[in-house]
Amino acid sequence: MTLRIGLIGAGRMGAALAHHLAYSVENAAFVSIADPNEENRLQMARRFGVDQTYCDHEQLLEESDVDAVVVVTPTSTHVDVVCAAAAAGKHIFVEKPLALTVAGCDQAIAAAEAAGVKLQVGFMRRFDPAYVAAKEKIDAGVIGRPVMFKSTGRDPWRTSLKYARREASGGLILDMAIHDFDAGRWLMGSDVLRAYSEGGCLVFPELGEVGDIDNAVVNLKFAGGAVGNVDVSRNAIYGYDIRTEVIGSEGSVMIGGLQQTAMLTLTKNSVAHDTIPGFMARFAAAYAAELRAFVDAVLEERDVPVTGRDARAATAIGIAATQSFDEQRPVYLSEVAP
Amino acid sequence: MTLRIGLIGAGRMGAALAHHLAYSVENAAFVSIADPNEENRLQMARRFGVDQTYCDHEQLLEESDVDAVVVVTPTSTHVDVVCAAAAAGKHIFVEKPLALTVAGCDQAIAAAEAAGVKLQVGFMRRFDPAYVAAKEKIDAGVIGRPVMFKSTGRDPWRTSLKYARREASGGLILDMAIHDFDAGRWLMGSDVLRAYSEGGCLVFPELGEVGDIDNAVVNLKFAGGAVGNVDVSRNAIYGYDIRTEVIGSEGSVMIGGLQQTAMLTLTKNSVAHDTIPGFMARFAAAYAAELRAFVDAVLEERDVPVTGRDARAATAIGIAATQSFDEQRPVYLSEVAP
Amino acid sequence: MTLRIGLIGAGRMGAALAHHLAYSVENAAFVSIADPNEENRLQMARRFGVDQTYCDHEQLLEESDVDAVVVVTPTSTHVDVVCAAAAAGKHIFVEKPLALTVAGCDQAIAAAEAAGVKLQVGFMRRFDPAYVAAKEKIDAGVIGRPVMFKSTGRDPWRTSLKYARREASGGLILDMAIHDFDAGRWLMGSDVLRAYSEGGCLVFPELGEVGDIDNAVVNLKFAGGAVGNVDVSRNAIYGYDIRTEVIGSEGSVMIGGLQQTAMLTLTKNSVAHDTIPGFMARFAAAYAAELRAFVDAVLEERDVPVTGRDARAATAIGIAATQSFDEQRPVYLSEVAP
Amino acid sequence: MTLRIGLIGAGRMGAALAHHLAYSVENAAFVSIADPNEENRLQMARRFGVDQTYCDHEQLLEESDVDAVVVVTPTSTHVDVVCAAAAAGKHIFVEKPLALTVAGCDQAIAAAEAAGVKLQVGFMRRFDPAYVAAKEKIDAGVIGRPVMFKSTGRDPWRTSLKYARREASGGLILDMAIHDFDAGRWLMGSDVLRAYSEGGCLVFPELGEVGDIDNAVVNLKFAGGAVGNVDVSRNAIYGYDIRTEVIGSEGSVMIGGLQQTAMLTLTKNSVAHDTIPGFMARFAAAYAAELRAFVDAVLEERDVPVTGRDARAATAIGIAATQSFDEQRPVYLSEVAP
Repeated sequence: MTLRIGLIGAGRMGAALAHHLAYSVENAAFVSIADPNEENRLQMARRFGVDQTYCDHEQLLEESDVDAVVVVTPTSTHVDVVCAAAAAGKHIFVEKPLALTVAGCDQAIAAAEAAGVKLQVGFMRRFDPAYVAAKEKIDAGVIGRPVMFKSTGRDPWRTSLKYARREASGGLILDMAIHDFDAGRWLMGSDVLRAYSEGGCLVFPELGEVGDIDNAVVNLKFAGGAVGNVDVSRNAIYGYDIRTEVIGSEGSVMIGGLQQTAMLTLTKNSVAHDTIPGFMARFAAAYAAELRAFVDAVLEERDVPVTGRDARAATAIGIAATQSFDEQRPVYLSEVAP
Repeated sequence: MTLRIGLIGAGRMGAALAHHLAYSVENAAFVSIADPNEENRLQMARRFGVDQTYCDHEQLLEESDVDAVVVVTPTSTHVDVVCAAAAAGKHIFVEKPLALTVAGCDQAIAAAEAAGVKLQVGFMRRFDPAYVAAKEKIDAGVIGRPVMFKSTGRDPWRTSLKYARREASGGLILDMAIHDFDAGRWLMGSDVLRAYSEGGCLVFPELGEVGDIDNAVVNLKFAGGAVGNVDVSRNAIYGYDIRTEVIGSEGSVMIGGLQQTAMLTLTKNSVAHDTIPGFMARFAAAYAAELRAFVDAVLEERDVPVTGRDARAATAIGIAATQSFDEQRPVYLSEVAP
Repeated sequence: MTLRIGLIGAGRMGAALAHHLAYSVENAAFVSIADPNEENRLQMARRFGVDQTYCDHEQLLEESDVDAVVVVTPTSTHVDVVCAAAAAGKHIFVEKPLALTVAGCDQAIAAAEAAGVKLQVGFMRRFDPAYVAAKEKIDAGVIGRPVMFKSTGRDPWRTSLKYARREASGGLILDMAIHDFDAGRWLMGSDVLRAYSEGGCLVFPELGEVGDIDNAVVNLKFAGGAVGNVDVSRNAIYGYDIRTEVIGSEGSVMIGGLQQTAMLTLTKNSVAHDTIPGFMARFAAAYAAELRAFVDAVLEERDVPVTGRDARAATAIGIAATQSFDEQRPVYLSEVAP
Repeated sequence: MTLRIGLIGAGRMGAALAHHLAYSVENAAFVSIADPNEENRLQMARRFGVDQTYCDHEQLLEESDVDAVVVVTPTSTHVDVVCAAAAAGKHIFVEKPLALTVAGCDQAIAAAEAAGVKLQVGFMRRFDPAYVAAKEKIDAGVIGRPVMFKSTGRDPWRTSLKYARREASGGLILDMAIHDFDAGRWLMGSDVLRAYSEGGCLVFPELGEVGDIDNAVVNLKFAGGAVGNVDVSRNAIYGYDIRTEVIGSEGSVMIGGLQQTAMLTLTKNSVAHDTIPGFMARFAAAYAAELRAFVDAVLEERDVPVTGRDARAATAIGIAATQSFDEQRPVYLSEVAP
């Protein structure tokens, strides 16, 4: 059995997922593409042998013979596209974030539920071999009860000013730390009670001009009592740096590293190695695995591994943490996602 | 020229410093010991060939022919002993913390200033080769402007219940994170504006019964705008874990590691190594170096490298962070140390 | 322009290369398969959408509309298949080793030259990002003149007894260390003058019964004066272990590591991580890259990056090192490959 | 009970051991010093509070009230000094190598046995925490039967030309690899059957002018069947590099590392750390521990942990390996140490 999939959004991230759709997912057929950018659309179609291409995703949803869609459009359009896809009876994989508001998440979730279609959200870390291995250790009881969560998400480049605006990305904390917030809920097995953030626009003043910051630390109090801290930065100029720790009552797991290529250069009194260039290099296997998991869930009629509710919960933490930064006080999740 | 030194306090930490006083500090003579515990006192005297021993530190201050004292008594007595030593005209090295209150720090500082004696406080990390190397890189501009501070301080054992009480140790945050707070001020080159803590008694319920917690995360906002986070835990059962990062506009430094012995054991599908057993193993060189620096500062009539004011500032952060935990709000340093 | 490629040999290694042919090589079309095993052949054809399949490689060479072949047949057949492919005017990529004898190598090289077709041999390490990065450092002069070569090649499993026989694989030293010998020539920029081996059947007595050993160390003297040592083992039960060092007059490079998944598990006094399971995991990127390089060389009419002469030279070192083990004396390359 | 010790030889290495004698060995009294260099002798006496000093070691042996001597004189004098000390009834700790010839070793061993005094030789690696931990794993059966031994000994500097001469040091292989040879016998639990060396004077032509080389690899065949390889270099300009591996039938141990200070510097696309500056930094704890073990063995009338026979065996391997280099053939230990 093969799941026929249409890709909505043929930009950079879309191209990354398209590659995996075409080559890494056994039971999927990559059959159609929708993107208003004709060049991107046609180039991708040629590259992956896709016959059907559309300017508009509505066309794809109406005309294309697809069972499911992979949505990689700009964040601000996610809810509309998801609702349209659901109305068309298509199963949906949507890149993170599902929406920048809790209401948007709720709308998308409701649409998928009403239509009886699967809705999976792209928190790819849950499929990264290192995160998966850590989760398995935790579930096996190797570290006892998790009591502290630490997570670092740092980019080696400044995001675009257009994207940095709150309206486009949700701002630094929501945009970047949402992966850590989701990982926190998943690895700690607990929702978050409240968040408190400190941050600043410390390196790139132009980000401040569009209302964003470039560094933040977010304290978390989990509903189960555990504590957590997430830091995000746009100026890890040494390289892409994703690391997570879970400290438990009987041990700990540490995920992530700094080295891309297993080669050391030794010169006078010094040993040096390279760093990880970016998320494509770090999470290639995870992007393939999340798509495989989505296809399997649809074909085998099982629950998707990362739900709309997961997206809503992580988004809510990001909103609370952002509001905390704005108001310099701890913000309870109950305030933003009742 | 040789500095004659008396040791006040012959307990476990006193013995560690005594060893360095006797063997690692070129221009010091270890000439007297005061401790109410006769066995500790006499055993130490025998071991290091010290002739003068006293039950009471007042006797040592009066009778002993010493130029300086190293104070390693219980924290609650630090201020009294420091003031007495200052009144007796002795230069003073005192183990951290100088006091558990800002007022206590002020009293000790005033006493030393009034007497014209040196007062150095035992933040030994400032003398650890790894911290020193990081500080040198930062001062040399290698990482640009520091914008984020991250520091981890985790013990592999639960402290004694007697010591865990707020009256004795100041509680988890003040007791353990004070080293990180001092490192933060020193490495970031900035005072702290406010602190916000989350914590909990999550592993050792008996700590809760005496009013302490076992895990905490503390967000810091530095006066210069930078952000920071410190985590402390009493249940790093894997080993003693001290790590610090400073992220700058042009690079980063990372201090600390997990391995004590340079030996890997490789068995089926697994590579394993040991961990650092405790602070004696981790910071032996630093304890020696801080005493050498103290002796040199006195003999060469230079400023001590870690002052009473440094101790006051770090203590104040600890108090603010503790109050933040109690009151679930960010606490400004100006509130606790006007 | 697209190179039409036929795969000869659909076994385990053939399947690995087939995957890359189908998905990782931009300008290649994977158009036909030959393998006497019908099940393997048809399964692979289905999986990668290949229309033409043949039982016999001669059929493929005659009937198939291919420009080039990838030869992954049993080693003992390599020379015959290469000669047939050359006679049919096909460009050839052949898995290592080209042949188990110098005469076999010479025959294959002569056939390709006579036919004017490209002949590339599968020393994939030359395309591994870590080896490539090291080579670039060496070529850039970062380590000065290379003076010592060290290389480790260890498998976590015993090879099959059928394959272990000298007739099938050349025996441990030729079979496994040939990669190290090629890396040595390539990284050191020098041929080898003589080899001296010690070895033994120390763990798997059944290997001894078919005439093989399971551990060996091989000293090399390079023609340019440098020294080298290669060790190979079939009982690295901890994991697949490939590491190489080049020590130069001004520095050194170290290639390879032990960890597959970037995750540490910390339990009481111990830190542990996993190992690399095997060559597929370690060298996936290299297998793709060597095929891309072959296709590019053919399409752009450039020299292939790893030639038949490279294969001959590495094979000769393996033969000399094996003879040295047999005769307990240093064997000169001039003795075995005049 | 206290062992009164005299130090014979107050040069650089003597000073290192003197420090440990004075400060790190509980039951020893460092009571006298002999060295023809008056300045070294008196400076050391002042520093460590030693009352008796002598120009000539014979005086020390006659006049001094010592139970044991630590011999750190030039290698060429070791046998004479050891024999004199034995004749005077003193227990003896002598720096490696005991002698540069097997006959010299035999003479020293015989003298000590005839006098009934202890004779321990300074193979300090046996007391290094990492080597000790590896030995414990091996002895506990964690890696099964040891089948391969690999050891690297590299200095970051060229030795003096005076010392490089064969008459003074035995040449590169004997001088440097003797530590690895001893470690091999100890960790593998087996004597060596034969050795084969390749080497060259590749970086420092001036070493060639005095008859020495700067790089060598030595293959070993152990009497029990296992294989080994040792490499030594005088141009590891990146740093002092001592690493050892033992591969067993069920696992492996790896000893040693490259980093001295636990600090990483991260700049654009690069992570760097320092290296180990030299043997004093690497083996400080081992030097202290070997002296403690000597003192304990004497006081408790137990066998010393590293005997004259151990020294003889390691020396013989070094001589065989050197002869192999000279004659380009494997040399059996039975040829040089019947």
